[in-house]
Amino acid sequence: MNDQQPVQLRVGLAQVDTTVGDLSGNADLVRTWTAKAAEDGVHLVVFPEMTLTGYPAEDLVLRESFAHASEHALVDLATRLADDGLGEVAVVVGYLAHTEGSGPAPVDQPPTDDDRPGDANPRRGAPRNAAALLYGGEVVARYYKRHLPNYGVFDEARYFVPGTEMPIVRLHGVDVALTVCEDLWVEGGPCGVIGQAGADVVVSPNASPYERAKDDLRLPLVRRRAEEARATVVYCNQVGGQDELVFDGDSLVVNAAGELLARAPQFVEHLLTVDLTIDPSSVPERTDGRIGPMTVTRHLLSEEPAPAFEPRPSTIVAPLDDCEEVWRALVLGLRDFIDKNGIPSVVLGLSGGIDSALVAALAVDALGADRVYGVGLPSKWSRAHSLSDAEDSAERLGLHYSVVPIAPMVEAYEKSVELSGTAAENLQARVRGTLLMGLSNQHGHLLLATSNKSEVAVGYSTLYGDAAGGFAPIKDVPKTLVWAIARWRNEEARRHGGTEPIPQNSIDKPPSAELAPGQQDSDSLPSYEELDAVIADYVDRDLGMAQLLERGHDPEVVAKVLRLVDMAEFKRRQSAPGTKISLKAFGRDRRLPITNRWRETPPTVLEGAAQ
Amino acid sequence: MNDQQPVQLRVGLAQVDTTVGDLSGNADLVRTWTAKAAEDGVHLVVFPEMTLTGYPAEDLVLRESFAHASEHALVDLATRLADDGLGEVAVVVGYLAHTEGSGPAPVDQPPTDDDRPGDANPRRGAPRNAAALLYGGEVVARYYKRHLPNYGVFDEARYFVPGTEMPIVRLHGVDVALTVCEDLWVEGGPCGVIGQAGADVVVSPNASPYERAKDDLRLPLVRRRAEEARATVVYCNQVGGQDELVFDGDSLVVNAAGELLARAPQFVEHLLTVDLTIDPSSVPERTDGRIGPMTVTRHLLSEEPAPAFEPRPSTIVAPLDDCEEVWRALVLGLRDFIDKNGIPSVVLGLSGGIDSALVAALAVDALGADRVYGVGLPSKWSRAHSLSDAEDSAERLGLHYSVVPIAPMVEAYEKSVELSGTAAENLQARVRGTLLMGLSNQHGHLLLATSNKSEVAVGYSTLYGDAAGGFAPIKDVPKTLVWAIARWRNEEARRHGGTEPIPQNSIDKPPSAELAPGQQDSDSLPSYEELDAVIADYVDRDLGMAQLLERGHDPEVVAKVLRLVDMAEFKRRQSAPGTKISLKAFGRDRRLPITNRWRETPPTVLEGAAQ
Repeated sequence: MNDQQPVQLRVGLAQVDTTVGDLSGNADLVRTWTAKAAEDGVHLVVFPEMTLTGYPAEDLVLRESFAHASEHALVDLATRLADDGLGEVAVVVGYLAHTEGSGPAPVDQPPTDDDRPGDANPRRGAPRNAAALLYGGEVVARYYKRHLPNYGVFDEARYFVPGTEMPIVRLHGVDVALTVCEDLWVEGGPCGVIGQAGADVVVSPNASPYERAKDDLRLPLVRRRAEEARATVVYCNQVGGQDELVFDGDSLVVNAAGELLARAPQFVEHLLTVDLTIDPSSVPERTDGRIGPMTVTRHLLSEEPAPAFEPRPSTIVAPLDDCEEVWRALVLGLRDFIDKNGIPSVVLGLSGGIDSALVAALAVDALGADRVYGVGLPSKWSRAHSLSDAEDSAERLGLHYSVVPIAPMVEAYEKSVELSGTAAENLQARVRGTLLMGLSNQHGHLLLATSNKSEVAVGYSTLYGDAAGGFAPIKDVPKTLVWAIARWRNEEARRHGGTEPIPQNSIDKPPSAELAPGQQDSDSLPSYEELDAVIADYVDRDLGMAQLLERGHDPEVVAKVLRLVDMAEFKRRQSAPGTKISLKAFGRDRRLPITNRWRETPPTVLEGAAQ
Repeated sequence: MNDQQPVQLRVGLAQVDTTVGDLSGNADLVRTWTAKAAEDGVHLVVFPEMTLTGYPAEDLVLRESFAHASEHALVDLATRLADDGLGEVAVVVGYLAHTEGSGPAPVDQPPTDDDRPGDANPRRGAPRNAAALLYGGEVVARYYKRHLPNYGVFDEARYFVPGTEMPIVRLHGVDVALTVCEDLWVEGGPCGVIGQAGADVVVSPNASPYERAKDDLRLPLVRRRAEEARATVVYCNQVGGQDELVFDGDSLVVNAAGELLARAPQFVEHLLTVDLTIDPSSVPERTDGRIGPMTVTRHLLSEEPAPAFEPRPSTIVAPLDDCEEVWRALVLGLRDFIDKNGIPSVVLGLSGGIDSALVAALAVDALGADRVYGVGLPSKWSRAHSLSDAEDSAERLGLHYSVVPIAPMVEAYEKSVELSGTAAENLQARVRGTLLMGLSNQHGHLLLATSNKSEVAVGYSTLYGDAAGGFAPIKDVPKTLVWAIARWRNEEARRHGGTEPIPQNSIDKPPSAELAPGQQDSDSLPSYEELDAVIADYVDRDLGMAQLLERGHDPEVVAKVLRLVDMAEFKRRQSAPGTKISLKAFGRDRRLPITNRWRETPPTVLEGAAQ
């Protein structure tokens, strides 16, 4: 500051639900929420990462027509905000920048060598994961994300060139520095630069996908960066589902002392506001120019402080408990997949088992009962309770329900070709899949697959049978968690005096695929407690045999589970997308070859290998 | 050199077919081919990139047990080669290195921040894409790939830390520098460093996937690098199929003057040898230490020249013509997928159409007729020629053939649920898919999907119907090319006086899905010439609307095709893998979101956007 008077700023965090590729729809979202913020007296409002394009836009980023349209949409948005009379609000939005051919090429970008087919070369121009500050109808400052995550579900080194400039904008006498998402995860990164340059506020637009217990990581992280930047960090995360990912919001604000000032609810669009009072004596001298790998530039919007106002207390919402958090993640992931793709309704097979009962309950919570169609598909091996539990589930949920016995189709096949053993079992599952897809095609429903993570892991499902569907809501939910969230959902209903949506019998009875007489999952699989524990260590944590045995798993169980998981890769490659909730979900998060002769071997061999 | 006598070296390029994950099998391959090389008097033999692990190993790279096993396999291989009496041959092999926690972190690697879940963090240790020189039972030198491709089908920034060291090994008085694959694509990269440091030979182990006409790119590229390095470049590329990729070999040797000295055949394992005579006056002074971003170290193996020998002429094999090249790529891609996965036999539906006739011919060329099972699945809409052409195809190929009419199954469904229009059409395709999967499960066949790239692009296939299968051999072959290679294969048969494998009638008749009376593809699609031209520009070249119209495509055709391509993403996500032959194949090469509202719009809007 120049003067020594404390200055105030009301900051808004608009955690909105954008849609990938919908430039105009996302721009409208920014206008709507900026208007709300303005009504609420906000001076600076921050939107999530890549607000205009949605995140992740994947290979759309490489299409020049899309990148140009994003640049255009940004300039257009600045104008429209001013036309809306919102020019006096400083708006930070994320977008896809396309800086013609400029920018340093990281070592892993493809060469510009003329002999590389130009069309295969994403280096035409330099796409940037960018954030801009809009004010008075103009694009005042542009920041290019410096740290590009390229692990787990992220492929940003495929798309973006890292930035080297750090714009700091002075608004009402308050210095506001820009960063984007991953920049906040890196010690000695942009926040270190800001700490040396001097700023009051660091804004951080994010697209940080939900993972169980991830909210436990954000607060300590943001605390350390706020201390490093010696400024208040404004962390705004997006909300909503995008294919395999769901974003939970959980936006927060932490001051330079590491105090949590405000925290937004999870899984809902929300405008979080916080009133900042900056004590000039607490902030260092301002510098600019080259600091470490970055160049700091300063932009003056307004020196005069905002008119003094009475600070309001901010909301600090506590993160949700595990089961509710998972439930809300699955509901939002499913709802956004269905609605953003313009799908009117969903259909699924109701077996009376826990998986289909749970998916039906999720679908009704996500879409309402009128958009959900359940079908009972009994076979000659189905037991009486199967159909009655399916009917019970349908009644509790009030969804559309019908029954189609599969025997006539199964018999027709068996008259034409001789099928026995697994082939005969899978036939029943595929007849169901074909019937459900027929109803999907006939009525425009999307078929929901009911496979859980335990099944997907060990391939305990029939390709084109029960694995068929356009979306698999519980694909990343292990069976033991399936039971836990089913119980939680019923308790939640009891707490609110409503009907329990999931039949207790579906929760209690031993799981069975019912593809053969008296068949139970436990005939061919270890207990789900054992199975899920091994899956968590082998799939989610990627541990090898020696480590798995150190963790105390039964060697025979480990050997069997690993073999099943390794052999099922070809099935997973053709499975429907589903919402990621775990440390590592099947899909882009875990990329293993189908053709793969590597098998984890006994530790004796590994000890040799470890030398 | 120290003295001024010309020195000689016989170099071997072993373009072998490794298998991902098969450390011991790949090591045995190195021992076998090194023995051949030794018999042939070779002093230095070069193997492809990541020889021991196979390429691409994808997320196996991140598993510590696998990385440790790779390190162990390398040391073990050096010992075994010496035990085999091959210690005097210098052997360059690729492997996965795991250098504990060392190495610079590129900007796009995940942070080591403690709050990042350690299990999700590939930064534990530093995986390297490495090449080692083995000699006298020891690992003499290790080189870590510097340039990590992270575009198209490549994700190397996800896996590896780039190297900064350049070892140069003196063997029989000849200075041999190491590089890996992408390092050769970068001007001013390692070859520039080598040019300054001084070396006689640059070895370059490669895993460069086949693409149509890619061989036209390699020679001029290697020429420029040889000139830049002022040394002879020994480019050894792997052979074989790995899931979506096929590698064509095409290994070559170019001297510092840019002369092509030797070139290997495509799509076959081969030991290419070349006799080098280095004129000491032609090479610069040697230096070492820090040069640009790299540190050059020198290793002396043997100063004394190899005993003089009579140089032999080298083979220079001309690249194949387009149709033969594509055919060989598809055959090898299919054969390796089936054999490396230990699959005994394949089954496919024979419709009498060109796609299934072509896939059957490919399968017989790849596996032999005795491992191929064809099934005719006539419906009430199949015309007489369909079954007769299918039978003709089966007879010409000598494969196992049977017929299963689908009417009884179709009727059974239609009695249970009311299906009309597309739903009724898809039902027939799914009954076929279910029958074929039943035979697959019953007899252990892998089902081959017969979809071509044109169909996959516009979604002109039935999910779980004709799209069903474990592998899709012509998934990346546009329909117009399907006809072209079918004609080529028949001509090839005529040239060798054999039976034409593909019925002329299947080639000549207008394509039809035969799911409705009198149906033809042309009822719902533009001509395949128009369709494939738009697909090549929109999918392979990623052009936007304005550019597509500039290229002279019909605006209505473009609008229709783009809509179909955009809408079919959810189907492609569940499709079987198939061999990539084009600039951009569906699969890991083109990563678009399913939930995606972006649509290419008329140029008037785009012109605005382009401003």
